[in-house]
Amino acid sequence: MLTQAEQDDARSRAAAILADAGIVLTAPERDAIEIADFGLSELDVTGLEVVVYVNTERVCAKELVLFPRQLCPEHRHPPFDGTAGKEETFRCRAGVVYLYTDGEPTAEPAARVPEDGVFTVWREVVLRPGEQHTIAPDTLHWFQAGDEGAVVSEFSTESRDELDVFTDPRIRRTTVLAEG
Amino acid sequence: MLTQAEQDDARSRAAAILADAGIVLTAPERDAIEIADFGLSELDVTGLEVVVYVNTERVCAKELVLFPRQLCPEHRHPPFDGTAGKEETFRCRAGVVYLYTDGEPTAEPAARVPEDGVFTVWREVVLRPGEQHTIAPDTLHWFQAGDEGAVVSEFSTESRDELDVFTDPRIRRTTVLAEG
Repeated sequence: MLTQAEQDDARSRAAAILADAGIVLTAPERDAIEIADFGLSELDVTGLEVVVYVNTERVCAKELVLFPRQLCPEHRHPPFDGTAGKEETFRCRAGVVYLYTDGEPTAEPAARVPEDGVFTVWREVVLRPGEQHTIAPDTLHWFQAGDEGAVVSEFSTESRDELDVFTDPRIRRTTVLAEG
Repeated sequence: MLTQAEQDDARSRAAAILADAGIVLTAPERDAIEIADFGLSELDVTGLEVVVYVNTERVCAKELVLFPRQLCPEHRHPPFDGTAGKEETFRCRAGVVYLYTDGEPTAEPAARVPEDGVFTVWREVVLRPGEQHTIAPDTLHWFQAGDEGAVVSEFSTESRDELDVFTDPRIRRTTVLAEG
């Protein structure tokens, strides 16, 4: 669980990283930055800050912010409502992102993961500003920012976060706010 | 028709505008910036510079560059292959964009159009950095940059430019290169 103060602090830091990357948000967008701690209450280790620009039945576009070495845990987007599931392209805008998907494991991956984390796919794709990678639907993937953090644009089909399937059974996609 | 030199010049100018907006391209992306003169051979009046990041059967994302007062002529994206047609969201990243769609005409629109242009929809939406607007499929629209030019991110379903229907019968979507 995150306290309101922790959420507000994360939102301020994310807004500053986006501004440094030259990405302009409206004031309501800044106030609505989603802070996802994936239920682990260690936001700076496992977490993601998200600006949703548009999310219709057909198209979704987001800006993802990662703090230094922050990681988004392993998950996949399963089929739903007769669709193949979410197809997404990650485009790095600032910083470096280490992205992991299914395939031949990379010998010396750059990511650093917590000891109690659950990660099963280790084919590394390194994304620097201007570089991008498309993830097919229902494909396991996870990613971590480098030491300077990162900004990643996500272009995808409809986003239904509540359907995401995480490898680590402890993880919940919905952030719970601490009381008081 | 555009000469190769005119295309190269436009590509350089577009790359500079994107760089000023903080948008990083790879070298191959810079070299592949699409220069669209819509067959009118007056690129700085009617034209568009386009970087296509991704365009699959499900998702498309582009960066659109407009030179100062450059305009993208009126068109719509009709249904195809059993889909409703292209749904697109324009998000202004830099500069100002005057976007026109169906509806009550704006009394004193900011756009300046050529005398021989054909424009039938005049409901104005002004987009400044961080502001965006979604265009439903098969809906007439056109847009022009303000005096400083503009950068617009486009998030959409599959883009099939060759299917676009333009109001002005002179317009062709495919740029023709002059010989020699």
